[in-house]
Amino acid sequence: MDFKKVAIIGVGLMGGSFALSLKKLKFNCKITGIGRKKQNLIRAKELRIIDEYSTVPKKGVKDADLILLSTPVGQFQKIAKEIREYIKKGAIVTDVGSVKAKVVKELEDLMPESVSFVGAHPVAGKECSGIDAASSEIFNNTRCIITPSPNTDRKALKKTIELWKAFGSKTILMSPEEHDSIFASVSHLPHVIAYVLINTIMDINKNILPHGGRGLRDMTRIALSPSEMWRDICSYNRKNILKSLNQFITSVTHVKKLIEKSEWEKLEKEFQKAGVGRARLDSGKAGPFAPANRPRR
Amino acid sequence: MDFKKVAIIGVGLMGGSFALSLKKLKFNCKITGIGRKKQNLIRAKELRIIDEYSTVPKKGVKDADLILLSTPVGQFQKIAKEIREYIKKGAIVTDVGSVKAKVVKELEDLMPESVSFVGAHPVAGKECSGIDAASSEIFNNTRCIITPSPNTDRKALKKTIELWKAFGSKTILMSPEEHDSIFASVSHLPHVIAYVLINTIMDINKNILPHGGRGLRDMTRIALSPSEMWRDICSYNRKNILKSLNQFITSVTHVKKLIEKSEWEKLEKEFQKAGVGRARLDSGKAGPFAPANRPRR
Repeated sequence: MDFKKVAIIGVGLMGGSFALSLKKLKFNCKITGIGRKKQNLIRAKELRIIDEYSTVPKKGVKDADLILLSTPVGQFQKIAKEIREYIKKGAIVTDVGSVKAKVVKELEDLMPESVSFVGAHPVAGKECSGIDAASSEIFNNTRCIITPSPNTDRKALKKTIELWKAFGSKTILMSPEEHDSIFASVSHLPHVIAYVLINTIMDINKNILPHGGRGLRDMTRIALSPSEMWRDICSYNRKNILKSLNQFITSVTHVKKLIEKSEWEKLEKEFQKAGVGRARLDSGKAGPFAPANRPRR
Repeated sequence: MDFKKVAIIGVGLMGGSFALSLKKLKFNCKITGIGRKKQNLIRAKELRIIDEYSTVPKKGVKDADLILLSTPVGQFQKIAKEIREYIKKGAIVTDVGSVKAKVVKELEDLMPESVSFVGAHPVAGKECSGIDAASSEIFNNTRCIITPSPNTDRKALKKTIELWKAFGSKTILMSPEEHDSIFASVSHLPHVIAYVLINTIMDINKNILPHGGRGLRDMTRIALSPSEMWRDICSYNRKNILKSLNQFITSVTHVKKLIEKSEWEKLEKEFQKAGVGRARLDSGKAGPFAPANRPRR
């Protein structure tokens, strides 16, 4: 890895953790943090997460070999328009957004010919936010989905894969569209449901929330995720999320009807089916992926 | 506490943990485990969780001062009918069921005059099951809801409260009806939703489950809870759960419509509201309960 200067736009949990992961690799690169809030950048520098900072993206990206977009995805396009003319020839631009198809399209359209965009989505815990939660271990032993399109430069792709592997991530390649279809179900839907669940309980009676046990707390932990980030994800993956939500509403209505009709045997079978599925989710952690999900390389 | 003999009917995670919590207190009581599966009872004795066992409830409860019902709640009535004539005069019968109104009514109707039933619901993690998961620490630092009715014997109530306090639980008193209304929202609804969420993803494409990250795993951990137990809870708290489910379906449909109409600002506000509520859930752990939930004694 021959990155001499890395620019990180959006120095929060993910951007900060990316910087710390780079520093842990101990190759000599200078890291510039770029953001809107100067106070946050000063804090990141104090914590030695970044080496220097700028509040002006087009200045901050100067001479960078690698540029990371780690703001909410809804800001990528505006940032790309601002920095495009200032990016060094041959640089790689990458991201850590949880949604890919629209991001990859937007960024590929905006990048100059001499600059390569490679989309990436590290599947790492993100319910907390902010620079103080950043850690060099957040990507270690997790998966990172990398989403090349037919236009992706193969050298830039190879370097991006190498970088994530060096962070300790298991890299998985899939198309941006496949990514968005899968993650609408396994990630975006659960996030939306976590938010809805908390709001439902508050709408019933906000005073009863503290009665919730560990089950409710674990189940709704992701409702602490930044609302702006999840608003953008819903906007960028709208069609797939609507499809998942419709399927979910069908399923919950089915279960409601079983309870209404006191169909207890059928209800138990639904619960059993879910138990088997959930057990598979755990076993999937270490085991091989199912054929449909096997990395393509 | 002057229990000389304790009978535990249903020696799984909860019953076994109750036995281990008793043993930790080191007062001399003999614990009889009662269950259908002899192999499980032998294992519990080997693990020194129980001192003796019986597969015949009416034999096992002989001479017991304290009888714990820790099977799925749907079995309580049948067991009570079998043991009622064999219970020692002055004994206390209690339980650890997650649903209370119907349980308290059924048990009060069935117990002889000389025997007191006191309903209890320790709010402890229960997604795993079985005797091997039992622990003397499971009730420590958690809440135990105790649900006296107007008929509950005050001495038996006092002893039951003392016992749970000795286990390290924070005891909270409320009526069986209030309990069921609150826990339909904060516990039963989330469990049903966890089951539905897993089934939704499996219905979309069962091969994609392993792509789920820590968020999905935490969110659906409770879908590993025993299906028979949750079938019974849905049956026993049917009306309250239906009410919660209807409110939930209204909320999720509202959010779906916001996404459909691309109402991103309104969607972000929904997510923000949930974030504030979820933060309250954490702070509620240590802080005082809201007025509506303050223990009544």
